Amino acid sequence: MRADARKNHDQLLAVAGTVITEQGVDASMRDIARRADVGLATLLRHFPTREALFEALLRTSFDELAVTASEFEASKASDEALVAWLRDFVACAHNYRGVVALMVAAIEDPESALHASCVSMRAAGARLLARAQAEGKARTDIDGTDLYALAGSLAWLSDQPALAPRADRLFDVVASAILTGD
Amino acid sequence: MRADARKNHDQLLAVAGTVITEQGVDASMRDIARRADVGLATLLRHFPTREALFEALLRTSFDELAVTASEFEASKASDEALVAWLRDFVACAHNYRGVVALMVAAIEDPESALHASCVSMRAAGARLLARAQAEGKARTDIDGTDLYALAGSLAWLSDQPALAPRADRLFDVVASAILTGD
Repeated sequence: MRADARKNHDQLLAVAGTVITEQGVDASMRDIARRADVGLATLLRHFPTREALFEALLRTSFDELAVTASEFEASKASDEALVAWLRDFVACAHNYRGVVALMVAAIEDPESALHASCVSMRAAGARLLARAQAEGKARTDIDGTDLYALAGSLAWLSDQPALAPRADRLFDVVASAILTGD
Repeated sequence: MRADARKNHDQLLAVAGTVITEQGVDASMRDIARRADVGLATLLRHFPTREALFEALLRTSFDELAVTASEFEASKASDEALVAWLRDFVACAHNYRGVVALMVAAIEDPESALHASCVSMRAAGARLLARAQAEGKARTDIDGTDLYALAGSLAWLSDQPALAPRADRLFDVVASAILTGD
Protein backbone atom coordinates (compact mmCIF):
# COMPACT_ATOMS: atom_id res chain seq x y z
CA MET A 1 0.00 0.00 0.00
CA ARG A 2 1.34 3.44 -0.89
CA ALA A 3 1.95 5.88 1.93
CA ASP A 4 -1.06 8.10 1.12
CA ALA A 5 -3.33 5.06 0.69
CA ARG A 6 -2.14 3.74 4.05
CA LYS A 7 -2.85 7.11 5.59
CA ASN A 8 -6.42 7.13 4.18
CA HIS A 9 -6.89 3.56 5.37
CA ASP A 10 -5.77 4.38 8.90
CA GLN A 11 -7.89 7.52 9.01
CA LEU A 12 -11.02 5.63 7.87
CA LEU A 13 -10.34 3.02 10.52
CA ALA A 14 -10.03 5.65 13.25
CA VAL A 15 -13.32 7.25 12.24
CA ALA A 16 -15.02 3.85 12.03
CA GLY A 17 -13.79 3.03 15.53
CA THR A 18 -15.32 6.24 16.88
CA VAL A 19 -18.66 5.77 15.11
CA ILE A 20 -18.95 2.13 16.19
CA THR A 21 -18.07 2.97 19.79
CA GLU A 22 -20.91 5.52 19.71
CA GLN A 23 -23.54 3.57 17.77
CA GLY A 24 -22.57 -0.07 18.17
CA VAL A 25 -21.97 -2.57 15.38
CA ASP A 26 -25.19 -1.67 13.59
CA ALA A 27 -23.69 1.66 12.53
CA SER A 28 -24.15 1.91 8.76
CA MET A 29 -21.24 1.98 6.35
CA ARG A 30 -22.88 5.07 4.88
CA ASP A 31 -22.70 6.87 8.25
CA ILE A 32 -19.07 5.93 8.65
CA ALA A 33 -18.24 7.21 5.15
CA ARG A 34 -20.07 10.48 5.83
CA ARG A 35 -18.24 11.04 9.11
CA ALA A 36 -14.92 10.35 7.37
CA ASP A 37 -15.94 12.79 4.65
CA VAL A 38 -15.47 10.27 1.83
CA GLY A 39 -17.91 8.60 -0.56
CA LEU A 40 -19.36 5.21 0.26
CA ALA A 41 -17.48 3.73 -2.72
CA THR A 42 -14.16 4.88 -1.22
CA LEU A 43 -14.95 3.27 2.13
CA LEU A 44 -16.00 0.04 0.40
CA ARG A 45 -12.77 0.00 -1.62
CA HIS A 46 -10.84 -0.14 1.66
CA PHE A 47 -13.31 -2.37 3.52
CA PRO A 48 -15.62 -4.29 1.19
CA THR A 49 -17.82 -5.57 4.04
CA ARG A 50 -18.70 -4.57 7.55
CA GLU A 51 -16.93 -7.71 8.76
CA ALA A 52 -13.74 -6.72 6.94
CA LEU A 53 -13.93 -3.41 8.79
CA PHE A 54 -14.35 -5.14 12.14
CA GLU A 55 -11.54 -7.49 11.33
CA ALA A 56 -9.23 -4.53 10.78
CA LEU A 57 -10.49 -2.82 13.95
CA LEU A 58 -10.11 -5.89 16.13
CA ARG A 59 -6.85 -7.18 14.66
CA THR A 60 -4.62 -4.97 16.81
CA SER A 61 -6.48 -5.80 20.00
CA PHE A 62 -6.47 -9.49 19.15
CA ASP A 63 -2.75 -9.48 18.43
CA GLU A 64 -2.15 -7.79 21.78
CA LEU A 65 -4.30 -10.38 23.53
CA ALA A 66 -2.27 -13.21 22.00
CA VAL A 67 0.93 -11.60 23.31
CA THR A 68 -0.68 -11.06 26.70
CA ALA A 69 -1.61 -14.75 26.88
CA SER A 70 2.03 -15.74 26.36
CA GLU A 71 3.23 -13.21 28.94
CA PHE A 72 0.72 -14.38 31.54
CA GLU A 73 1.63 -18.00 30.82
CA ALA A 74 5.27 -17.22 31.58
CA SER A 75 4.73 -15.01 34.61
CA LYS A 76 1.62 -16.08 36.52
CA ALA A 77 0.22 -19.14 38.26
CA SER A 78 -2.08 -21.07 35.92
CA ASP A 79 -5.34 -20.03 37.57
CA GLU A 80 -4.35 -16.37 37.84
CA ALA A 81 -3.13 -16.33 34.25
CA LEU A 82 -6.42 -17.78 33.00
CA VAL A 83 -8.63 -15.33 34.89
CA ALA A 84 -6.48 -12.28 34.14
CA TRP A 85 -6.49 -13.09 30.43
CA LEU A 86 -10.22 -13.74 30.45
CA ARG A 87 -10.74 -10.32 32.02
CA ASP A 88 -8.67 -8.66 29.26
CA PHE A 89 -10.58 -10.58 26.61
CA VAL A 90 -13.95 -9.47 27.99
CA ALA A 91 -12.77 -5.85 28.16
CA CYS A 92 -11.59 -6.04 24.56
CA ALA A 93 -14.83 -7.59 23.28
CA HIS A 94 -16.77 -4.91 25.12
CA ASN A 95 -14.90 -2.06 23.39
CA TYR A 96 -17.26 -2.11 20.43
CA ARG A 97 -20.83 -2.62 21.59
CA GLY A 98 -22.42 -5.60 19.89
CA VAL A 99 -19.25 -6.98 18.34
CA VAL A 100 -19.32 -9.99 20.63
CA ALA A 101 -22.23 -11.58 18.74
CA LEU A 102 -20.23 -11.25 15.51
CA MET A 103 -17.17 -12.77 17.19
CA VAL A 104 -19.16 -15.68 18.49
CA ALA A 105 -20.70 -16.33 15.07
CA ALA A 106 -17.33 -16.03 13.32
CA ILE A 107 -15.81 -18.86 15.32
CA GLU A 108 -18.03 -21.36 13.48
CA ASP A 109 -17.96 -19.63 10.09
CA PRO A 110 -14.78 -20.15 8.06
CA GLU A 111 -16.10 -17.66 5.48
CA SER A 112 -16.11 -14.79 7.98
CA ALA A 113 -13.35 -12.21 7.75
CA LEU A 114 -13.15 -12.45 11.54
CA HIS A 115 -12.74 -16.23 11.56
CA ALA A 116 -8.93 -16.51 11.68
CA SER A 117 -8.58 -13.90 14.43
CA CYS A 118 -11.31 -15.52 16.52
CA VAL A 119 -9.82 -18.97 16.13
CA SER A 120 -6.40 -17.79 17.28
CA MET A 121 -8.05 -15.95 20.20
CA ARG A 122 -9.81 -19.14 21.21
CA ALA A 123 -6.54 -21.09 20.89
CA ALA A 124 -4.75 -18.66 23.23
CA GLY A 125 -7.49 -19.07 25.85
CA ALA A 126 -7.61 -22.82 25.38
CA ARG A 127 -3.88 -23.02 26.10
CA LEU A 128 -4.28 -21.14 29.38
CA LEU A 129 -7.30 -23.29 30.25
CA ALA A 130 -5.44 -26.55 29.50
CA ARG A 131 -2.54 -25.46 31.71
CA ALA A 132 -4.88 -24.68 34.61
CA GLN A 133 -6.74 -27.95 34.04
CA ALA A 134 -3.46 -29.93 34.04
CA GLU A 135 -2.65 -28.45 37.45
CA GLY A 136 -6.12 -29.27 38.78
CA LYS A 137 -7.03 -25.62 39.08
CA ALA A 138 -9.81 -25.44 36.47
CA ARG A 139 -12.78 -27.70 35.88
CA THR A 140 -12.07 -30.29 33.21
CA ASP A 141 -15.57 -30.53 31.71
CA ILE A 142 -15.19 -27.40 29.59
CA ASP A 143 -13.05 -26.72 26.54
CA GLY A 144 -11.66 -23.64 24.79
CA THR A 145 -14.90 -22.97 22.93
CA ASP A 146 -16.86 -23.05 26.21
CA LEU A 147 -14.38 -20.56 27.63
CA TYR A 148 -14.81 -18.36 24.55
CA ALA A 149 -18.60 -18.61 24.91
CA LEU A 150 -18.53 -17.70 28.61
CA ALA A 151 -16.26 -14.74 27.84
CA GLY A 152 -18.75 -13.72 25.16
CA SER A 153 -21.65 -13.86 27.60
CA LEU A 154 -19.68 -11.72 30.08
CA ALA A 155 -18.89 -9.18 27.37
CA TRP A 156 -22.61 -9.14 26.53
CA LEU A 157 -23.39 -8.37 30.18
CA SER A 158 -20.95 -5.44 30.10
CA ASP A 159 -22.71 -4.20 26.95
CA GLN A 160 -26.06 -3.83 28.74
CA PRO A 161 -26.20 -0.36 30.29
CA ALA A 162 -28.52 -1.55 33.07
CA LEU A 163 -26.09 -4.29 34.11
CA ALA A 164 -22.71 -2.71 33.47
CA PRO A 165 -22.27 -1.65 37.15
CA ARG A 166 -22.54 -5.34 38.11
CA ALA A 167 -20.36 -6.68 35.32
CA ASP A 168 -17.21 -7.01 37.44
CA ARG A 169 -18.98 -8.94 40.17
CA LEU A 170 -20.69 -11.22 37.66
CA PHE A 171 -17.31 -11.80 36.04
CA ASP A 172 -16.05 -13.08 39.40
CA VAL A 173 -19.06 -15.37 39.77
CA VAL A 174 -18.48 -16.97 36.37
CA ALA A 175 -14.69 -17.08 36.84
CA SER A 176 -15.21 -18.93 40.12
CA ALA A 177 -17.25 -21.54 38.24
CA ILE A 178 -14.42 -22.08 35.77
CA LEU A 179 -11.84 -22.42 38.53
CA THR A 180 -13.90 -24.43 40.98
CA GLY A 181 -13.31 -27.71 39.16
CA ASP A 182 -15.55 -30.74 39.25
CA MET B 1 -62.77 -5.16 24.67
CA ARG B 2 -65.58 -6.39 22.40
CA ALA B 3 -65.43 -9.99 21.24
CA ASP B 4 -64.41 -9.16 17.66
CA ALA B 5 -61.78 -6.66 18.85
CA ARG B 6 -60.39 -9.30 21.20
CA LYS B 7 -60.28 -11.77 18.35
CA ASN B 8 -58.34 -9.31 16.15
CA HIS B 9 -56.02 -8.55 19.06
CA ASP B 10 -55.28 -12.22 19.66
CA GLN B 11 -54.80 -12.88 15.97
CA LEU B 12 -52.33 -9.98 15.63
CA LEU B 13 -50.46 -11.29 18.64
CA ALA B 14 -50.22 -14.78 17.17
CA VAL B 15 -48.85 -13.42 13.88
CA ALA B 16 -46.40 -11.16 15.73
CA GLY B 17 -45.16 -14.15 17.74
CA THR B 18 -44.49 -16.08 14.53
CA VAL B 19 -42.72 -13.19 12.78
CA ILE B 20 -40.56 -12.40 15.83
CA THR B 21 -39.63 -16.04 16.30
CA GLU B 22 -38.46 -16.03 12.67
CA GLN B 23 -36.77 -12.63 12.49
CA GLY B 24 -35.94 -11.74 16.09
CA VAL B 25 -36.96 -8.59 17.94
CA ASP B 26 -35.80 -6.33 15.13
CA ALA B 27 -38.75 -7.44 12.98
CA SER B 28 -40.49 -4.29 11.81
CA MET B 29 -44.01 -3.39 12.87
CA ARG B 30 -44.70 -2.91 9.15
CA ASP B 31 -43.71 -6.53 8.41
CA ILE B 32 -45.91 -7.79 11.21
CA ALA B 33 -48.88 -5.77 9.94
CA ARG B 34 -48.33 -7.05 6.40
CA ARG B 35 -48.18 -10.67 7.54
CA ALA B 36 -51.36 -10.16 9.56
CA ASP B 37 -52.96 -8.61 6.48
CA VAL B 38 -53.89 -5.37 8.26
CA GLY B 39 -52.69 -1.80 7.88
CA LEU B 40 -49.88 -0.49 10.06
CA ALA B 41 -52.37 1.92 11.70
CA THR B 42 -54.51 -1.00 12.83
CA LEU B 43 -51.52 -2.79 14.37
CA LEU B 44 -50.45 0.40 16.13
CA ARG B 45 -53.97 0.90 17.51
CA HIS B 46 -53.64 -2.45 19.29
CA PHE B 47 -49.92 -2.11 20.15
CA PRO B 48 -48.71 1.49 20.05
CA THR B 49 -45.04 0.50 20.47
CA ARG B 50 -42.87 -2.50 19.85
CA GLU B 51 -42.41 -2.80 23.62
CA ALA B 52 -46.16 -2.90 24.15
CA LEU B 53 -46.28 -5.77 21.68
CA PHE B 54 -43.52 -7.64 23.53
CA GLU B 55 -45.22 -6.98 26.81
CA ALA B 56 -48.37 -8.68 25.51
CA LEU B 57 -46.35 -11.55 24.02
CA LEU B 58 -44.34 -12.17 27.18
CA ARG B 59 -47.12 -11.59 29.70
CA THR B 60 -48.50 -15.13 29.45
CA SER B 61 -45.05 -16.72 29.76
CA PHE B 62 -44.17 -14.43 32.66
CA ASP B 63 -47.39 -15.22 34.48
CA GLU B 64 -46.69 -18.92 34.04
CA LEU B 65 -43.15 -18.47 35.37
CA ALA B 66 -44.47 -16.74 38.49
CA VAL B 67 -46.81 -19.69 39.11
CA THR B 68 -43.96 -22.12 38.46
CA ALA B 69 -41.79 -20.34 41.04
CA SER B 70 -44.47 -20.83 43.70
CA GLU B 71 -44.94 -24.47 42.74
CA PHE B 72 -41.21 -25.19 42.87
CA GLU B 73 -40.96 -23.37 46.19
CA ALA B 74 -43.60 -25.68 47.63
CA SER B 75 -42.39 -28.94 46.10
CA LYS B 76 -38.61 -28.90 45.69
CA ALA B 77 -35.48 -28.51 47.80
CA SER B 78 -34.28 -24.91 47.72
CA ASP B 79 -31.29 -25.50 45.43
CA GLU B 80 -33.26 -27.66 43.00
CA ALA B 81 -36.11 -25.16 42.93
CA LEU B 82 -33.74 -22.30 42.14
CA VAL B 83 -31.96 -24.09 39.30
CA ALA B 84 -35.14 -25.58 37.79
CA TRP B 85 -36.80 -22.17 37.74
CA LEU B 86 -33.70 -20.52 36.30
CA ARG B 87 -33.75 -23.09 33.50
CA ASP B 88 -37.39 -22.29 32.72
CA PHE B 89 -36.64 -18.58 32.78
CA VAL B 90 -33.76 -18.93 30.33
CA ALA B 91 -35.90 -21.07 28.00
CA CYS B 92 -38.66 -18.45 28.11
CA ALA B 93 -36.31 -15.53 27.41
CA HIS B 94 -34.84 -17.48 24.51
CA ASN B 95 -38.23 -17.97 22.84
CA TYR B 96 -38.01 -14.64 21.03
CA ARG B 97 -34.50 -14.07 19.76
CA GLY B 98 -33.08 -10.81 21.06
CA VAL B 99 -35.81 -10.12 23.61
CA VAL B 100 -33.44 -10.69 26.48
CA ALA B 101 -31.64 -7.37 25.88
CA LEU B 102 -35.00 -5.59 26.07
CA MET B 103 -35.88 -7.45 29.27
CA VAL B 104 -32.59 -6.54 30.85
CA ALA B 105 -32.99 -2.88 29.92
CA ALA B 106 -36.61 -2.82 31.14
CA ILE B 107 -35.66 -3.81 34.66
CA GLU B 108 -34.03 -0.40 35.19
CA ASP B 109 -36.51 1.63 33.14
CA PRO B 110 -39.84 2.35 34.88
CA GLU B 111 -41.12 3.89 31.62
CA SER B 112 -40.84 0.61 29.74
CA ALA B 113 -44.03 -1.34 29.03
CA LEU B 114 -42.07 -4.43 30.08
CA HIS B 115 -40.98 -2.97 33.41
CA ALA B 116 -43.71 -4.35 35.68
CA SER B 117 -43.47 -7.87 34.26
CA CYS B 118 -39.69 -7.89 34.53
CA VAL B 119 -39.75 -6.63 38.09
CA SER B 120 -42.17 -9.34 39.18
CA MET B 121 -40.05 -11.91 37.34
CA ARG B 122 -36.97 -10.73 39.22
CA ALA B 123 -38.91 -10.85 42.51
CA ALA B 124 -39.93 -14.48 41.90
CA GLY B 125 -36.29 -15.45 41.27
CA ALA B 126 -35.06 -13.41 44.22
CA ARG B 127 -37.44 -15.30 46.50
CA LEU B 128 -36.07 -18.66 45.37
CA LEU B 129 -32.52 -17.34 45.69
CA ALA B 130 -33.12 -16.02 49.21
CA ARG B 131 -34.56 -19.38 50.28
CA ALA B 132 -31.52 -21.24 48.96
CA GLN B 133 -29.20 -18.67 50.55
CA ALA B 134 -30.96 -19.03 53.93
CA GLU B 135 -30.32 -22.78 53.78
CA GLY B 136 -26.66 -22.25 52.88
CA LYS B 137 -27.15 -23.72 49.42
CA ALA B 138 -26.49 -20.62 47.32
CA ARG B 139 -23.70 -18.05 47.46
CA THR B 140 -24.71 -15.02 49.47
CA ASP B 141 -22.76 -12.39 47.53
CA ILE B 142 -25.35 -12.11 44.74
CA ASP B 143 -28.86 -10.67 44.73
CA GLY B 144 -31.98 -11.06 42.62
CA THR B 145 -30.75 -8.64 39.97
CA ASP B 146 -27.49 -10.57 39.61
CA LEU B 147 -29.54 -13.74 39.16
CA TYR B 148 -31.67 -11.98 36.54
CA ALA B 149 -28.50 -10.77 34.79
CA LEU B 150 -26.93 -14.23 34.78
CA ALA B 151 -30.16 -15.70 33.41
CA GLY B 152 -30.06 -13.01 30.73
CA SER B 153 -26.51 -13.90 29.76
CA LEU B 154 -27.46 -17.58 29.52
CA ALA B 155 -30.44 -16.72 27.33
CA TRP B 156 -28.09 -14.66 25.16
CA LEU B 157 -25.83 -17.72 24.79
CA SER B 158 -28.82 -19.81 23.66
CA ASP B 159 -29.60 -17.10 21.12
CA GLN B 160 -26.24 -17.49 19.37
CA PRO B 161 -26.59 -20.21 16.71
CA ALA B 162 -22.91 -21.15 16.98
CA LEU B 163 -23.20 -21.72 20.74
CA ALA B 164 -26.69 -23.14 21.12
CA PRO B 165 -25.45 -26.78 21.17
CA ARG B 166 -23.36 -25.88 24.27
CA ALA B 167 -26.00 -23.82 26.00
CA ASP B 168 -27.16 -26.58 28.36
CA ARG B 169 -23.64 -27.35 29.51
CA LEU B 170 -22.83 -23.68 30.00
CA PHE B 171 -26.05 -23.33 31.97
CA ASP B 172 -24.75 -26.03 34.33
CA VAL B 173 -21.41 -24.23 34.70
CA VAL B 174 -23.08 -20.96 35.68
CA ALA B 175 -25.67 -22.68 37.87
CA SER B 176 -22.84 -24.42 39.74
CA ALA B 177 -21.34 -21.00 40.46
CA ILE B 178 -24.60 -19.77 41.95
CA LEU B 179 -24.97 -22.84 44.13
CA THR B 180 -21.35 -23.24 45.15
CA GLY B 181 -21.50 -20.49 47.76
CA ASP B 182 -18.61 -18.40 48.95
